Amino acid sequence: MDLPFDDNFYMKKALQEAEIAFEKGEVPIGAVIVVDNRIIARAHNLTEQLTDVTAHAEMQAITAAANFLGGKYLQNCTMYVTLEPCQMCAGALYWSQISKIVYAAEDAQRGYNAMGTKLHPKTKVVGGVLEKEASDLLKRFFIERRNLN
Amino acid sequence: MDLPFDDNFYMKKALQEAEIAFEKGEVPIGAVIVVDNRIIARAHNLTEQLTDVTAHAEMQAITAAANFLGGKYLQNCTMYVTLEPCQMCAGALYWSQISKIVYAAEDAQRGYNAMGTKLHPKTKVVGGVLEKEASDLLKRFFIERRNLN
Repeated sequence: MDLPFDDNFYMKKALQEAEIAFEKGEVPIGAVIVVDNRIIARAHNLTEQLTDVTAHAEMQAITAAANFLGGKYLQNCTMYVTLEPCQMCAGALYWSQISKIVYAAEDAQRGYNAMGTKLHPKTKVVGGVLEKEASDLLKRFFIERRNLN
Repeated sequence: MDLPFDDNFYMKKALQEAEIAFEKGEVPIGAVIVVDNRIIARAHNLTEQLTDVTAHAEMQAITAAANFLGGKYLQNCTMYVTLEPCQMCAGALYWSQISKIVYAAEDAQRGYNAMGTKLHPKTKVVGGVLEKEASDLLKRFFIERRNLN
């Protein structure tokens, strides 16, 4: 049984967003932003539906959280995201000065660590939370897509 | 006299966008995207008005150009932008596979070159077009802001 309000709890919420993306034929990545144990933004990848490379889950979650807070800085906020952010999303998180990023699966090719993108010095990072669940969902998506083509 | 349809011509259009941002109290940065000598997107920084760190001129221009084209890749497109893109915007341009980026002023602190952000291998870059005009506008903005505080 999961205790509520720990990293696994919120990552499961991000995974639910990733599953919604999967159902829409989008690469299944989801994100939520949490402040004081409260989810203030939920988003999933919509690059295909919006035909927009900027419509990653993280970008939409940052915009939604800033709208909720009425300010553009995400201090005291934690983002839970099912895949390690890319250069663009890490660059946006840099500007947001977010307090903490928790991601599930690593992206060894396009992730911000491999690409050398800098986060804000105030930002703490935890990786590997529910990694298997997130990477299994991505693998299942790409296997199904391959079989369709 | 400027010949139309050269880099100076389009950078002046981007500078006009930067001036609109200036009038709104936004850091004055503008961008346009051009395909076949036609401007298909114009945008300026709106981070204050939208209270959104992702609302850089380049991000909005990428979204607008993809909407115009009906596809998410910006092949055969050139972005003209008055300041060297940051990590976030360079990361978005990477995903867009844009053909060419022309920027005016360098950003030695936060520009993608200093930060080590990777562009798509297909993307060509030209810097320094109307550099003085763009950096003078930015300097004037920051001097006026300092005097207001």
